[in-house]
Amino acid sequence: MKPLFLITNDDGYQSVGLHHLVRVAEEFGDVVVMAPERNSSGLGTSITTVRPLRVRAVGREGETFYSCDGTPADCVKMGLEHFCPRRPDLVLSGINYGSNASINALYSGTIGAVIEACLDGLPAIGFSLLTHSPAADFAPCTPSIRHILGQTLQHPLAAGTGLNVNIPHLPADQIRGIRVCRQAQAAWVDSLEKRTDPIGRPYWWMTGKFVCDNPLADSDEHALRQGYVSVVPIRPDFTDSAAMQIIQYYEQ
Amino acid sequence: MKPLFLITNDDGYQSVGLHHLVRVAEEFGDVVVMAPERNSSGLGTSITTVRPLRVRAVGREGETFYSCDGTPADCVKMGLEHFCPRRPDLVLSGINYGSNASINALYSGTIGAVIEACLDGLPAIGFSLLTHSPAADFAPCTPSIRHILGQTLQHPLAAGTGLNVNIPHLPADQIRGIRVCRQAQAAWVDSLEKRTDPIGRPYWWMTGKFVCDNPLADSDEHALRQGYVSVVPIRPDFTDSAAMQIIQYYEQ
Repeated sequence: MKPLFLITNDDGYQSVGLHHLVRVAEEFGDVVVMAPERNSSGLGTSITTVRPLRVRAVGREGETFYSCDGTPADCVKMGLEHFCPRRPDLVLSGINYGSNASINALYSGTIGAVIEACLDGLPAIGFSLLTHSPAADFAPCTPSIRHILGQTLQHPLAAGTGLNVNIPHLPADQIRGIRVCRQAQAAWVDSLEKRTDPIGRPYWWMTGKFVCDNPLADSDEHALRQGYVSVVPIRPDFTDSAAMQIIQYYEQ
Repeated sequence: MKPLFLITNDDGYQSVGLHHLVRVAEEFGDVVVMAPERNSSGLGTSITTVRPLRVRAVGREGETFYSCDGTPADCVKMGLEHFCPRRPDLVLSGINYGSNASINALYSGTIGAVIEACLDGLPAIGFSLLTHSPAADFAPCTPSIRHILGQTLQHPLAAGTGLNVNIPHLPADQIRGIRVCRQAQAAWVDSLEKRTDPIGRPYWWMTGKFVCDNPLADSDEHALRQGYVSVVPIRPDFTDSAAMQIIQYYEQ
């Protein structure tokens, strides 16, 4: 039986990046697509509890291609529970417009979908290309995606393990290779810009500057700046194991 | 100078749990409250990028008590950048109605606010009480919160370290103590219930059953079931460090 992939993203079902990922995945197996109706960037692992969800078939005749009016994590739950003919071998998310490296992983809907799949006990991979240009060419991503899908099918990831894959925005022949990394430490500064509306009342837009000076040599930011694709293994667990011993003074 | 606390939650600025936490925190220092306008449960670390944010003063004369029409993470950014008179010593979130132990931490807006504060380089603590009852009595939480705030002021947490504190829904004299734990592994099953609208079209409600059989002895679920308050140190990092060596076959 061919492998089955459930595919989603956070840019919405019409995204060129999603369609590119679907075409590469179809070289390896069957696909079910369940992608958000709208752009869902920045939604992380959020889920929709205050209203019900709807699903639409948005593919051509015979295609298992759907949109859902929820978050990326909602899409994964919906796809797994109601639209996959069997348990998929792998959940894929992307290709996202813009970096999900470093701390962007915490806000990312693309990675939120990966985390959701991991919580459901599946392996999952999120792909992102480091450009926000609507004219982005995803073709240079293809060799890396093929390599990573091939390796993953050959050496299945442990249940509940995800990969956060970021691809530099370079011509294919300038991508130097693939590096396994950890999430870089960084900060977003000056996140909220204050403005004044025509009535004189304040409002704030999310904006900000990503600051990551001197990323560690084994971090995703460092690899990307050197022209490598970064692959960070991720898990749906916030526990700071190293801190557990340090903070024993809380016990009583 | 008295310690300064920035306080938020995910149940909204009118929540009894929030007001209880504010009163306990005021025993230790000064507070700025920036809480969501509406219930924001399940929003995780999501941020609002598609529309601007507004802030309202919702306290009594002279109180630094505000609501923001964004997510819990938005509230932390807003509070830190525009409404705190100085950098706070600690960010607090809660008291949430319902458990944020185990994998609920990944979806929780309460813990999303803690993660946001950690990303901003601050220590932060999220508090949750294990009941969804609107009539919940938060008084039995007070001794544990006092102990944890006292310990945190005495032994400051490392920058970027959070605590996910869950409190069993028991009378104060039946709470057996406080245990430092790791996040339990678990699953939500049957998450989306299908229904049919009056026109015959399907829709789905988020629901599901939390399954955590035989939680590990050092996990939060285990501690809570034994009647202890659980304290899990958390960090804003999805990296699965143990997997980094295993997956070296991706490199090329």
